[in-house]
Amino acid sequence: MGSREATGDRRSRGGTPQAREVRIKILYTAICHSDIYFWEAKEQSPLFPRIFGHEAGGIVESVGEGVTELKPGDHVLPIFTGECKDCAHCKSEQSNMCELLRVNPDRGVMIEDGKSRFSIKGKPIYHFVGTSTFSEYTVVHSGCVAKINPSAPLDTVFLLSCGFCTGFGAAVNVAKPPKGSTVAVFGLGAVGLAAAEGAKFSGASRIIGVDVNPNRLEQAKKFGVTEFVNPKDHNKPVHEVLVEMTNGGVDTSIECTGNIQAMISAFESVHDGWGVAVLVGFPGKDDVFKTHPLNFLTERTLKGTFYGNFKPRTDIPLLVEKYMNKEIELEKFITHSVPFSEINTAFDLMLKGEGIRCLIRMEE
Amino acid sequence: MGSREATGDRRSRGGTPQAREVRIKILYTAICHSDIYFWEAKEQSPLFPRIFGHEAGGIVESVGEGVTELKPGDHVLPIFTGECKDCAHCKSEQSNMCELLRVNPDRGVMIEDGKSRFSIKGKPIYHFVGTSTFSEYTVVHSGCVAKINPSAPLDTVFLLSCGFCTGFGAAVNVAKPPKGSTVAVFGLGAVGLAAAEGAKFSGASRIIGVDVNPNRLEQAKKFGVTEFVNPKDHNKPVHEVLVEMTNGGVDTSIECTGNIQAMISAFESVHDGWGVAVLVGFPGKDDVFKTHPLNFLTERTLKGTFYGNFKPRTDIPLLVEKYMNKEIELEKFITHSVPFSEINTAFDLMLKGEGIRCLIRMEE
Ligand SMILES: NC(=O)c1ccc[n+]([C@@H]2O[C@H](COP(=O)([O-])OP(=O)(O)OC[C@H]3O[C@@H](n4cnc5c(N)ncnc54)[C@H](O)[C@@H]3O)[C@@H](O)[C@H]2O)c1
Ligand SMILES: NC(=O)c1ccc[n+]([C@@H]2O[C@H](COP(=O)([O-])OP(=O)(O)OC[C@H]3O[C@@H](n4cnc5c(N)ncnc54)[C@H](O)[C@@H]3O)[C@@H](O)[C@H]2O)c1
Ligand SMILES: [Zn+2]
Ligand SMILES: [Zn+2]
Ligand SMILES: [Zn+2]
Ligand SMILES: [Zn+2]
Repeated sequence: MGSREATGDRRSRGGTPQAREVRIKILYTAICHSDIYFWEAKEQSPLFPRIFGHEAGGIVESVGEGVTELKPGDHVLPIFTGECKDCAHCKSEQSNMCELLRVNPDRGVMIEDGKSRFSIKGKPIYHFVGTSTFSEYTVVHSGCVAKINPSAPLDTVFLLSCGFCTGFGAAVNVAKPPKGSTVAVFGLGAVGLAAAEGAKFSGASRIIGVDVNPNRLEQAKKFGVTEFVNPKDHNKPVHEVLVEMTNGGVDTSIECTGNIQAMISAFESVHDGWGVAVLVGFPGKDDVFKTHPLNFLTERTLKGTFYGNFKPRTDIPLLVEKYMNKEIELEKFITHSVPFSEINTAFDLMLKGEGIRCLIRMEE
Repeated sequence: MGSREATGDRRSRGGTPQAREVRIKILYTAICHSDIYFWEAKEQSPLFPRIFGHEAGGIVESVGEGVTELKPGDHVLPIFTGECKDCAHCKSEQSNMCELLRVNPDRGVMIEDGKSRFSIKGKPIYHFVGTSTFSEYTVVHSGCVAKINPSAPLDTVFLLSCGFCTGFGAAVNVAKPPKGSTVAVFGLGAVGLAAAEGAKFSGASRIIGVDVNPNRLEQAKKFGVTEFVNPKDHNKPVHEVLVEMTNGGVDTSIECTGNIQAMISAFESVHDGWGVAVLVGFPGKDDVFKTHPLNFLTERTLKGTFYGNFKPRTDIPLLVEKYMNKEIELEKFITHSVPFSEINTAFDLMLKGEGIRCLIRMEE
């Protein structure tokens, strides 16, 4: 099951950080569906060998030249999309797609010198989205590192480095469901459940979870989901089911599946006049979003987001404080826990759709 | 050229208004591309015979039972989409798609009794979008009538009943381009030029007009268009041309062509991170909007609008006042003028893409 590639050379210390880079000792990590997507490499020509992993927390071990905001011992979350604080995107209030450090799954090397910091028997092992957290040590651009409150429990707040923020931000920053409104969430993995949490946080009163996996029902209730629809239980398209349930469509829908048909259904489920749909799931390379243009003309809005539009260095430390003040709950997302040596169990759980996140402990 | 159908029975007085209806003596009207689209009936099974026309101004001649807000002599604009002031859409700040009176090009009869108010030799002539203004008299639901300041020149402000509001509102109400931003307008007919006016009104500093008709260039300058792109002058897709001209894409684009490829290009021309595209053109029945879902994920927004999101009865009287206060200019949209007997000249001008609006005077 490719665990060699997934975990890399376990003796590697992630190479020496170069200018503007930091070496992080990873303490906790987890698998997000995006790792699976690129690991399965069904539609891309993959980089190989490569170290996956991008949801993690750790401690700075050493820093390269010119790194002034981080020092050894800092508690940090490496983030798959960075923030240079200097480009048009970083300066825009609306975007987190830093021109220098935005997510790029096709790049397996550091931007500083176009080289990898990992090697096995003298040959490079490639990086993944600049984080490669399935490794005891990793090297990350300092612009992709959020420095957080050292008293926050890293084995919980590490969830903010991808899944939670992606879903929660898709709701609170992008979809912005009005108070008392109806929200549909397509896909009830960690990202979708975080979107449901965000919808609840925003004051939505009906939150309809949509998933093809019936096991998602029970756990979804803990995340604010008030109703559950399994498209397989109906013999008409799921958007028609939702339109009927809601007298014309949901006010907001958030797609967290990565399935193109679910993306289209999520859009076609929103009410005309004011409905807003937000795409979050990572699509296949050859997927095409198709709909009749009248679905837009009748005053529906479609958007998408990376990382819930959060700016990693600016916003994540503040979200950690929100967790410390009990304004957001994270523990309930962690349903399993394994040592790093059993990472393949975590892959199996994700592939079977069991549980939400499986905490992977780097130290046994 | 179907002038019989287009003009109906010229002796008809539009039948007697029933409850909640008014009979309007039309004084001025014009052809909008939507009339052409339904007149050509390339993709629908058309209603025949039918009286077209929906951009017009006139005077109330008589009112039906239960009409209290309008009386004979009132100056009015009939509007193709209505406002009951009572449904969820009318009560929403975001939508103008009244549940009772929203535009419905497939309905050729009055909603009151499912019958037509026009006839020829005892057989019904159908209505078009509830307005049918290519007729000296027409009957309209009172919820589709904007009562305006009687001192406003009807031969100019009648433009507010479709083209101007559709484009201007697409900019100021829907796209909302930020001050100093760059806007692309696809299609420089009356609707697109009004969108350019709206972009200028909102403070956009670069307004790029895109049209396949090179004659649009000169006149577009009077409407705030600062640069012109003819897709036919380039051997790469027009969205690539715009992305290059603007270092990554326009901030906002507004599509006013009705051409599906232009709709897709308008969306793919906007900048990632913050770009917003608005569809206005009326698509063909079998058109499909297709794009890679990553174009959404990279934080672009796509919306659409009918009638620029203006609420006909609430907003149009205020826009007339804006015209009276010289905040908006309308005269420059009228490039030709013919008596009603020469309506086919107005059809020819629209089909050839000459001029902007041709005023059709019902009284010679
Ligand atoms: N935009 C971003 O920044 C970003 C960040 C992280 C993850 N993602 C993407 O978000 C998606 C969700 O990630 P996750 O980690 O929660 O994955 P997950 O596998 O835990 O959850 C996905 C859920 O979607 C359900 N699903 C699949 N197809 C469906 C369909 N057609 N209809 C309804 N439900 C369906 C699955 O049963 C599963 O429960 C993935 O595509 C991932 O790549 C995007
Ligand atoms: N959404 C609404 O409420 C609403 C209201 C009124 C009109 N409309 C629609 O708006 C559109 C414009 O109406 P109009 O009266 O201004 O029409 P028009 O014919 O005067 O102008 C359309 C312009 O688009 C240009 N064009 C056509 N295909 C193009 C392409 N592929 N690329 C670039 N330019 C192209 C034409 O050359 C023309 O100049 C029509 O589709 C009409 O049906 C919609
Ligand atoms: Zn992820
Ligand atoms: Zn940046
Ligand atoms: Zn029109
Ligand atoms: Zn209404």
